[in-house]
Amino acid sequence: MTNFFSTQVYLDRIHRVQMLAQEKGLSGLIIGSGAQLIYLTGSRISTHERLLALVIPAHGTPTLVLPAVDRGDIAKSPLAQLGFDIITWEDGENPHHIAITALALSPTTTTPEIALGSELSADHVLALMALLPHASFSLATSVLAELFIAKDSPEIADLRFAGEAIDRVHAQVPELLRAGRTEKEVAKDLEQLILREHKTVDFVIVGSAENGANPHHDFSDRVLTVGDMVVVDIGGTTALGYHSDCTRTYIVGGLESANPDALAMYEVLFQAQKEAVQAVRPGVTAHYIDNVARQAITQAGYGEYFIHRTGHGIGLSTHEEPFIMAGNDLVLSPGMAFSIEPGIYIPHQYGARIEDIVVVTDTACELLNNQPRILR
Amino acid sequence: MTNFFSTQVYLDRIHRVQMLAQEKGLSGLIIGSGAQLIYLTGSRISTHERLLALVIPAHGTPTLVLPAVDRGDIAKSPLAQLGFDIITWEDGENPHHIAITALALSPTTTTPEIALGSELSADHVLALMALLPHASFSLATSVLAELFIAKDSPEIADLRFAGEAIDRVHAQVPELLRAGRTEKEVAKDLEQLILREHKTVDFVIVGSAENGANPHHDFSDRVLTVGDMVVVDIGGTTALGYHSDCTRTYIVGGLESANPDALAMYEVLFQAQKEAVQAVRPGVTAHYIDNVARQAITQAGYGEYFIHRTGHGIGLSTHEEPFIMAGNDLVLSPGMAFSIEPGIYIPHQYGARIEDIVVVTDTACELLNNQPRILR
Repeated sequence: MTNFFSTQVYLDRIHRVQMLAQEKGLSGLIIGSGAQLIYLTGSRISTHERLLALVIPAHGTPTLVLPAVDRGDIAKSPLAQLGFDIITWEDGENPHHIAITALALSPTTTTPEIALGSELSADHVLALMALLPHASFSLATSVLAELFIAKDSPEIADLRFAGEAIDRVHAQVPELLRAGRTEKEVAKDLEQLILREHKTVDFVIVGSAENGANPHHDFSDRVLTVGDMVVVDIGGTTALGYHSDCTRTYIVGGLESANPDALAMYEVLFQAQKEAVQAVRPGVTAHYIDNVARQAITQAGYGEYFIHRTGHGIGLSTHEEPFIMAGNDLVLSPGMAFSIEPGIYIPHQYGARIEDIVVVTDTACELLNNQPRILR
Repeated sequence: MTNFFSTQVYLDRIHRVQMLAQEKGLSGLIIGSGAQLIYLTGSRISTHERLLALVIPAHGTPTLVLPAVDRGDIAKSPLAQLGFDIITWEDGENPHHIAITALALSPTTTTPEIALGSELSADHVLALMALLPHASFSLATSVLAELFIAKDSPEIADLRFAGEAIDRVHAQVPELLRAGRTEKEVAKDLEQLILREHKTVDFVIVGSAENGANPHHDFSDRVLTVGDMVVVDIGGTTALGYHSDCTRTYIVGGLESANPDALAMYEVLFQAQKEAVQAVRPGVTAHYIDNVARQAITQAGYGEYFIHRTGHGIGLSTHEEPFIMAGNDLVLSPGMAFSIEPGIYIPHQYGARIEDIVVVTDTACELLNNQPRILR
């Protein structure tokens, strides 16, 4: 299993970033560690609190500024083959000054515009700003999202691979959810199953009964009992770094043991999720898709219990653009990959969520998760 | 094993933060997830890309601003008992506006000064700044470091506990480092041993021969052979969230098989580390301690191969203030906890590092790691 795309893929991405930076009148970008660096260079390097910065001027050769102690790590990815200038800094030097210098700002630009990577921490943001009091700063996402929001075929292939991997895990969930076991025991089993199918475990949620009413519950020592509604939301990461993320809701001990109110609620959710998936096509907005799911749930009287957006983009980050939520006028286009995951959460009682990853096609969308959505 | 200190500990810390904010003329602080939030509230809550902000005005009741989907998680720590105002926001709302409002800025202050938590990402920093174009922003570390840089007795007790835990792991390293095994096999064993003694594994470095010359190498498929010098740097986290971090250097198959040049180098390192530890006492600067280690290594001719600072503070973060490095004029005082970890790295050949955590006492320092430092 490969960990990287070819060097040319990364060079093309950098080239497109520089073209966009020029169009937008940016002097350059300063990117930290994390998903944006992986997208642009393949490198998963992380340097704790020390500054690592990929400095991409609008014109010319990018520079990687990295701590001397971490220089051994750059050989582990295509980064070393991209032809960037590489400047290492030692403790006691000012890495922010080095990064600003690498932008090669034109002396005739009085108010340079510089875009910062999302994952730079406040420490680094404020240190960079202090060195350029007359510059204007924006988020690199404004440039990068135009690239990574629509996935290309190799990326979609890997997301499809991730979807199939997590589907194989969900196929085994019913036999794990036995009365008498704790959420934690189930979660530990799931971690092993996810690892068998992925490079790493991203997260595991096993929310039974009232714990299912907390969308971001992870797992607890609560013991499963017959009739419990259980939300199982799991995800992992492939060798290339793409994420899976899929939720199904189950009933311990079979449907006949379930609370009839919970079953009625689930039927509403099932329809809402299906309608939202069916609504996905190029040309509609993210807001529109959110509204399809929200209307279906609201009209059935559960609107106040659907307390989150309908979905989030997915790729090298678990959550990224496009966010499928009210007010987002982004128009969907082919290659966009995101979750459709409405949920209904009745406080202190139970909750349910159904989540699939979809990729927008030329006419509609492809579902990357295909385990049954009916309650099991 | 407890996960938290008492509610009163956190209330006292918040009170001290507000006193310091008033002294420094700050309008307030906005803190994100991570070590600073754990320090102030005990909460390990994490909310991905959605804003979570603990807003601490200089006067009055703090407010926790958190995503509605994560509200179930705040009951898991003392946070819910601290009497803060809690405001949840739903997708589509502007959480940055809510956070700024919670600062309750005086309308008569034309240039409010606001301190931001280190772990807030550029996304949130720029969004907050855009809402307050006339404010001045600084790092919350300027306030918080005054609190957490000197540990109190319960914190030191937990760091001591962490030190003993990682010492018990190092005691078992010699039997793991057998010729024919890979670094990765040793690392996997170490992860299990660390987990037995800690709540979580923080990191594992097994750097043999030339890999030991990369201070931030983790581990590889390289097979150990007799005579290899191996750097083993390991750490974990206790239930309370405090970190261990200890490095020892070993020779596979016994000292008689080692390269004599490597043994001579190690002797220099051993003396340098010992002298630096002996130099620690209240009243000297961080720079001074770094210089003691650096001079010892430089005078023996290895100065160019000691490419990092001598140490870093440790607590709820693996790396935090005080940084023991050139140019840091911070004066050491009782309760400060940090590593003393000089290293010598001969590129493409071998490397060595010796690391102990020390806590400054009234007269000198207490060593929290006590496994033998001689080569084994």
